[in-house]
Amino acid sequence: MKINALVAQDATQPLSTHQISLRPLQKQDVKIEILYCGVCHSDLHMARNEWGVSRYPLVPGHEIVGRVVETGAQARRFTVGDIVGVGVMVDSCRECHFCQQQEEQYCEAGFTATYNGIDKYTGESTWGGYAQNVIVDEDFVVSVPQHLPLAGVAPMLCAGVTVWSPLRHYNVKAGDRVGVVGLGGLGHMAVKLASALGAEVTLFTTSPEKGADARRLGATQVVVSRDDAQMAACRASLDLIIDCVAAPHDLDPYLAALKTNGRLVLVGIPDSPHLSPDITPMVFRRLSISGSSIGSIKETQEMLDFCGEKNITADIELIGGEAIETAYARMLKGDVRYRFVIDMQATRW
Amino acid sequence: MKINALVAQDATQPLSTHQISLRPLQKQDVKIEILYCGVCHSDLHMARNEWGVSRYPLVPGHEIVGRVVETGAQARRFTVGDIVGVGVMVDSCRECHFCQQQEEQYCEAGFTATYNGIDKYTGESTWGGYAQNVIVDEDFVVSVPQHLPLAGVAPMLCAGVTVWSPLRHYNVKAGDRVGVVGLGGLGHMAVKLASALGAEVTLFTTSPEKGADARRLGATQVVVSRDDAQMAACRASLDLIIDCVAAPHDLDPYLAALKTNGRLVLVGIPDSPHLSPDITPMVFRRLSISGSSIGSIKETQEMLDFCGEKNITADIELIGGEAIETAYARMLKGDVRYRFVIDMQATRW
Repeated sequence: MKINALVAQDATQPLSTHQISLRPLQKQDVKIEILYCGVCHSDLHMARNEWGVSRYPLVPGHEIVGRVVETGAQARRFTVGDIVGVGVMVDSCRECHFCQQQEEQYCEAGFTATYNGIDKYTGESTWGGYAQNVIVDEDFVVSVPQHLPLAGVAPMLCAGVTVWSPLRHYNVKAGDRVGVVGLGGLGHMAVKLASALGAEVTLFTTSPEKGADARRLGATQVVVSRDDAQMAACRASLDLIIDCVAAPHDLDPYLAALKTNGRLVLVGIPDSPHLSPDITPMVFRRLSISGSSIGSIKETQEMLDFCGEKNITADIELIGGEAIETAYARMLKGDVRYRFVIDMQATRW
Repeated sequence: MKINALVAQDATQPLSTHQISLRPLQKQDVKIEILYCGVCHSDLHMARNEWGVSRYPLVPGHEIVGRVVETGAQARRFTVGDIVGVGVMVDSCRECHFCQQQEEQYCEAGFTATYNGIDKYTGESTWGGYAQNVIVDEDFVVSVPQHLPLAGVAPMLCAGVTVWSPLRHYNVKAGDRVGVVGLGGLGHMAVKLASALGAEVTLFTTSPEKGADARRLGATQVVVSRDDAQMAACRASLDLIIDCVAAPHDLDPYLAALKTNGRLVLVGIPDSPHLSPDITPMVFRRLSISGSSIGSIKETQEMLDFCGEKNITADIELIGGEAIETAYARMLKGDVRYRFVIDMQATRW
């Protein structure tokens, strides 16, 4: 079956509309008509081969919300018409320790990425969500609360669960003091989710003008990280910090902001090293620095259910697919609050 | 009361015998006749003011084993004749969150160090264990299993509990795979204690000739860390690594040796930064780097009780106090297996 998609033909050409073939519907598959797809910064890196692993043609997109239009003979979890989501993963080995305990994001064989992965059935590239349809094994499809504004749900499938996973894994609860570094796609979700969990949220930003927005999103305190006096005032005050900044930076001021036993969680990967962290406070106050990668299917579903209850979605700017290169250009300038989402049905193929 | 002690008069002179005055016995104090005192590398740093915080005159020593010779009117926990130990702390605020939950090593006001601290009662320096006696509040005194060879117990009061605390805090149990980096004073205790807890221990060393000794101490595997093939062979194999090397080094090979969800615990503080760790595997495999500082009084007692059951003590070389400068010189060359201990009763004052 041929469908329209926004395709990167190589690392230098702009994305453009081409037809691609989806794999034949397998027994456990669902076919999804894509309604919305979020635009993650990694889409841009991959379209332009900035991580050196892209295979072309390439269709980006791993923040997918859509409607089930067909189900395989043995698919039981969804029926035609259901509103569903697909995130960063579409398959995994299913057998390793981590798959068995429902942490597919840490699959020892490596999960199958939603795009630029290797499809188990065809042996060819997986195609992402900048497209009219996607076919995915139902075990990697999540249910979306239908009353939510669906365009705003799309970014939760990657940006949302990437911050939700450490909040839950490290058991953030009401009354905890949580810091969030950076108010971008991930950071603004971290502020919303942590505050909805009952935490008292401190937002660290280099941009004082983001303060009002951070408070609107749920932060009770905004600290301008370039202001030494403000940083000093929040020393040893936080239980957990989620650092959403991928650019290389100095981690020490955030270590200083942690209480004894506190943890700094890094969800971004810098393309050159951060400054080496000072070990002294880590030892004397038993601090930890931990990485965290996206989240499991189970965590994604939990997050969506939670957001359904709390009426939480991402703050987005909706675009047609033809505007993707303009969106990329604005993302590179940090000019987006807080996520572009492609409206697939408004896209002129 | 005047007693003999090995005193640093300033940063440049060798230690020499002088008389010092102990504080008058307080109601909750016990007076201890010191039998043995371990020689910690920090004693050397402090004697020579290498951390810039030394106040002179200074009496080093915080790995003390001795016999109770007098008790204060309200001291209830010990009686004359008891064999006891004193480690790195002799007091703390008693009131903060951490003191309340028996983690005095993280006291928010800072614990009172056994030497070069400020004595609560006199306002003057605390004197360490390179001396004939010490007077300490009974709450900071631990009970020593009398059947153990007491000289070998002394190093457990600092080196031992420093590795015991993270082993217990991170719940190392039978069957876990634990790495230990460096076979020195701390590392050799980590190998003994982790293997006695039932863990399968891998010792990382730059010195292949230490392999046989590591196996004797309890390691099941010895990896020469400069051998890339050996390092590659243990990739993603360990649950927890205790890194006992304070010198600046590359942490990445140890991160690589951790399983997903693994933790690298640093107990040493480098005097210049380690190479900045690679964040990529930390994110993709949810790894953590954590610091850890000595251990609590409660943990020290637990460790001593455990060692009493398992007949574990440090491997030591016994010296008289007059040999301290020779011992320091040998420590600087790494020429000690694995801890010097001063025999106080054999010391010629």
